[in-house]
Amino acid sequence: MPEKIRDVAHVSAVELLTPVLDDTVRFFTDQMAMEVVDRRGDSVYLHAWDDYEQFTVKVTGANTSGIGRTWLRARSPEALERRVASVERSGLGLGWSDDEPGYGPVFHFTDPDGHPFGIYHETRRYVPSDATRPSLKNQASRFPGRGANVRRLDHVNFLARDVVPSEDFVVAALTGRPSEQIVLDSGTKAAVWLTFSDKSYDVVHTRDWTGSPGRLHHVAFATDTREDILRAADVFLEAGVHIETGPHKHAIQQTFFLYVWEPGGNRIELCNAGARLLLAPDHEVITWTEAERAKGQAWGLETIASFHTHGTPPVTG
Amino acid sequence: MPEKIRDVAHVSAVELLTPVLDDTVRFFTDQMAMEVVDRRGDSVYLHAWDDYEQFTVKVTGANTSGIGRTWLRARSPEALERRVASVERSGLGLGWSDDEPGYGPVFHFTDPDGHPFGIYHETRRYVPSDATRPSLKNQASRFPGRGANVRRLDHVNFLARDVVPSEDFVVAALTGRPSEQIVLDSGTKAAVWLTFSDKSYDVVHTRDWTGSPGRLHHVAFATDTREDILRAADVFLEAGVHIETGPHKHAIQQTFFLYVWEPGGNRIELCNAGARLLLAPDHEVITWTEAERAKGQAWGLETIASFHTHGTPPVTG
Amino acid sequence: MPEKIRDVAHVSAVELLTPVLDDTVRFFTDQMAMEVVDRRGDSVYLHAWDDYEQFTVKVTGANTSGIGRTWLRARSPEALERRVASVERSGLGLGWSDDEPGYGPVFHFTDPDGHPFGIYHETRRYVPSDATRPSLKNQASRFPGRGANVRRLDHVNFLARDVVPSEDFVVAALTGRPSEQIVLDSGTKAAVWLTFSDKSYDVVHTRDWTGSPGRLHHVAFATDTREDILRAADVFLEAGVHIETGPHKHAIQQTFFLYVWEPGGNRIELCNAGARLLLAPDHEVITWTEAERAKGQAWGLETIASFHTHGTPPVTG
Amino acid sequence: MPEKIRDVAHVSAVELLTPVLDDTVRFFTDQMAMEVVDRRGDSVYLHAWDDYEQFTVKVTGANTSGIGRTWLRARSPEALERRVASVERSGLGLGWSDDEPGYGPVFHFTDPDGHPFGIYHETRRYVPSDATRPSLKNQASRFPGRGANVRRLDHVNFLARDVVPSEDFVVAALTGRPSEQIVLDSGTKAAVWLTFSDKSYDVVHTRDWTGSPGRLHHVAFATDTREDILRAADVFLEAGVHIETGPHKHAIQQTFFLYVWEPGGNRIELCNAGARLLLAPDHEVITWTEAERAKGQAWGLETIASFHTHGTPPVTG
Repeated sequence: MPEKIRDVAHVSAVELLTPVLDDTVRFFTDQMAMEVVDRRGDSVYLHAWDDYEQFTVKVTGANTSGIGRTWLRARSPEALERRVASVERSGLGLGWSDDEPGYGPVFHFTDPDGHPFGIYHETRRYVPSDATRPSLKNQASRFPGRGANVRRLDHVNFLARDVVPSEDFVVAALTGRPSEQIVLDSGTKAAVWLTFSDKSYDVVHTRDWTGSPGRLHHVAFATDTREDILRAADVFLEAGVHIETGPHKHAIQQTFFLYVWEPGGNRIELCNAGARLLLAPDHEVITWTEAERAKGQAWGLETIASFHTHGTPPVTG
Repeated sequence: MPEKIRDVAHVSAVELLTPVLDDTVRFFTDQMAMEVVDRRGDSVYLHAWDDYEQFTVKVTGANTSGIGRTWLRARSPEALERRVASVERSGLGLGWSDDEPGYGPVFHFTDPDGHPFGIYHETRRYVPSDATRPSLKNQASRFPGRGANVRRLDHVNFLARDVVPSEDFVVAALTGRPSEQIVLDSGTKAAVWLTFSDKSYDVVHTRDWTGSPGRLHHVAFATDTREDILRAADVFLEAGVHIETGPHKHAIQQTFFLYVWEPGGNRIELCNAGARLLLAPDHEVITWTEAERAKGQAWGLETIASFHTHGTPPVTG
Repeated sequence: MPEKIRDVAHVSAVELLTPVLDDTVRFFTDQMAMEVVDRRGDSVYLHAWDDYEQFTVKVTGANTSGIGRTWLRARSPEALERRVASVERSGLGLGWSDDEPGYGPVFHFTDPDGHPFGIYHETRRYVPSDATRPSLKNQASRFPGRGANVRRLDHVNFLARDVVPSEDFVVAALTGRPSEQIVLDSGTKAAVWLTFSDKSYDVVHTRDWTGSPGRLHHVAFATDTREDILRAADVFLEAGVHIETGPHKHAIQQTFFLYVWEPGGNRIELCNAGARLLLAPDHEVITWTEAERAKGQAWGLETIASFHTHGTPPVTG
Repeated sequence: MPEKIRDVAHVSAVELLTPVLDDTVRFFTDQMAMEVVDRRGDSVYLHAWDDYEQFTVKVTGANTSGIGRTWLRARSPEALERRVASVERSGLGLGWSDDEPGYGPVFHFTDPDGHPFGIYHETRRYVPSDATRPSLKNQASRFPGRGANVRRLDHVNFLARDVVPSEDFVVAALTGRPSEQIVLDSGTKAAVWLTFSDKSYDVVHTRDWTGSPGRLHHVAFATDTREDILRAADVFLEAGVHIETGPHKHAIQQTFFLYVWEPGGNRIELCNAGARLLLAPDHEVITWTEAERAKGQAWGLETIASFHTHGTPPVTG
């Protein structure tokens, strides 16, 4: 068996599409405590307070909601080369681009379900202004002390018409490792959690019940504590943001969570993993059965029905 | 520049020496919430509730306090081979051993300051008993609900007569990466934090003011929340465990901390990093000056004097 | 209008009936972190760690579940005299008793729905043993560092065939003040929260859908933090205790809550009010409508169906 | 012994003097999360988010720092009459005033050390605007989700040339009850904590080492959780607010605390008591000795030297 390598350092940033650009931006600045760092055309770039790169979320005005591009940072120039070659072999490569101001050359591709991706190594670091310079030099920018105070991007949960090809692609082309999964009694894989890092997951692929390609289940941002998430629930309540479910603790991956819908309709998770990491280099995938999943969340909360029906963009008919 | 590799997955376990074996074991079971999983000769093996391997701490009865062996898990058999070859080249290798029941073959060596180490890849996983079987299958053992509830080992802070050779050894022989450091006005490096993983540090080397080799500053264990650490302070207070300093937040590495001395005299830290990780593969070392260090901890707490005078074993004269 | 007086200092203790005495006692010692302080006949007395009196819960073996007596401490001998006279006038008085070892003379009565009560002023304070002596002299006993670490009794939620007479009795005979209530569109009062103290409620009366007298909705215990409640959820999960709903935040009274069923079937709440107190001496009752109640809990959690169907003792037919 | 009565419901509000009015107001709005509700002359009125009355802090521009008036709300019109009569008898009464827009008639007086007070019953409630209307109707105004999010005023700690007359006055004229105190080996009372409510203290008198009258040690505001206080420490750090000591837990009263100096120099505490209340109507005063006080705070933090030297206004010579 060839030695496993880890060529992707982390998921860097994500683009969200929204039919209500201004409202979505306000959600990210006022409730999520991000800073607007750039605007280009119909896109607004936002930075979470401890992201070392230039942006964390790119919000783009569009006809409907959904996920645009997801960016991955390759661990080294050589790692980038290897990943590009591997993606090219898969037939999903789309070529190089240099239109993102935050990065050096980015190689574009899609996953088998059609979600747009970009992978790069060269990046531009976030440089604080006088207004955002932190007191502690080991922090990207000033702690905002506002709303949910999300620290960084945590993971992206994609919907996929078929989970298996997406998983295979992440493993083979992107050096991801599956950590947990749901396998139904029929043998169908309903969801798989994969990681590039020491976090227990960075991307998730969940079966899309509608059969539509390229959709989003949710994007998640990490807070430092569970209390941050409890406080965020009050913040969302006061701001009129739709709270879908939580705060509660997932059985799968044990994440403490809160799900809201940003004004554009995209599902956003606030998450906290505590001190949980996946330090074992040879972790075996944990499989949850249909019966186990039916038990609901860790402390018995029934999984909310909309979790199985709401994705973006919405599908009609 | 050759591509950086990461051959060490994580620090696995640590051996602590104590002149009061029973008291030290009680500290780890009653206040730290670990489980005794094995006893061999003068040694007791203890397991933290979410450690996937067989043990987290080996406590060994001895004349005095201090640190025995520190174990590192290599990421793969090939990684182990590379590290052994590299250590051998450094002249600090001591040969293979198979006397630890929790691991396959372990290669023994010391670091330049004389701290004993073992590196291995093959391991034996913790298997819960009926009494320790967790409700959630993605957790090593049952959540204890007792004392400080430490989840896992976090890092080891070694004392070193000279920090630089220790750092060089970790970088060159063990593929560690420095993340933060203190450099005095004289140019002397007073301390360096290094990581093998996505955590911002796994080992620390602090200059030993006594000039004695192989000593310990502290061993640290991670809790899920800062509240766990606040609660632990009450637990230590009631148990008569000496609280040295904290709870507070370090400026360096931003760790929320509490330091106590276990009954044998070794300094133990409880730590929580929140959602802070070092995801950048090319993180530049952050250097703290003497003046910056003199400011104390993040929220202004003066660094306690004993932090600069207490190490184990104690040095007389 | 006559000046309002406050003759009841607080709800002191409650008796719970259980068909599985040993299991219920284990729940209170192991998960709730109480101490067994006395045993008499079929009753076991338990003490929460910061209760200044001798006991917090009396658990009594019985055929079925339910609530036995609730004890109230009168603020002074004169206050006790006034309350006894007032209760006597209501026709619900049952006379004096001295059979409780924790108290001086207790006057027994029932509320209009038939729940047994006792009111007294003279009490015996909890005296710690060597094993339970706290480090801080302003604390009743040692902080247990175990399970849910509940600090003290918080409130009792009674079921009542008709809420109004129960409320009137608490106001007129016991000097309670209503703080919040639910009034249905039909004009029926579905629940009322009343307080004797500066807490926003000490007793609650909820309409019993079964028409059976003297039943219990739940007894609640206070923790110091919301994190204590999140941790308790893990403790209950591991112990196989049925978690009914939560953790979440009530809209009414804003209490952060977790509901479990102790092994005998009685519903137990863990609650935290944060810094919320009812300091206004002339607080006006807040009325929640049927529509408002239908919105569920503060952050949108749907009120669990069993909340409206489970009470103790269970009613058949 | 006459029956104890409780004629003062709570400490309502406090006036702080500052030589830098704008900076002090910004501290209260930006870091403490209060709302400016009124401005009159050199005074700005600020409201904490869950205060039911019109204002919590009145900040008044002045030559120097210090405390202006402290307002107490009498429990009823009759209670007000009794207190006024009692204060008049003490010779410290100053007569009625109606110059505070937030209250009905206020009776002015000083305590024996010269601190100005006002007592009243009739009050004007805070009425939220569209911008501050809360989602939950049992909350005074919208949860700000900003900075320290202090919920309400908690207590005032006065300096007094001699603690005993101040204590006697609070007990005799204001129906306060002492709960804890420090008595030095010399027999001198160094500090006393008194309460009007079920909280374990509402006012504190600490001996003034300078012999100057009418000075302030600190004013304290309550947060819902200890985590709010940890977060506030980051907020103060980023805002350049001087953090004097904490976060830590007091041994006396067990309060979790953080002390900062607002820009005008007045010491401000953020405090959290957890679920601790003083429910016993006959609580005996707990006395701490000089030796016990020398042990520092609950978890061993040495009491900071400036705690014994800094008061406002500053005293020179």
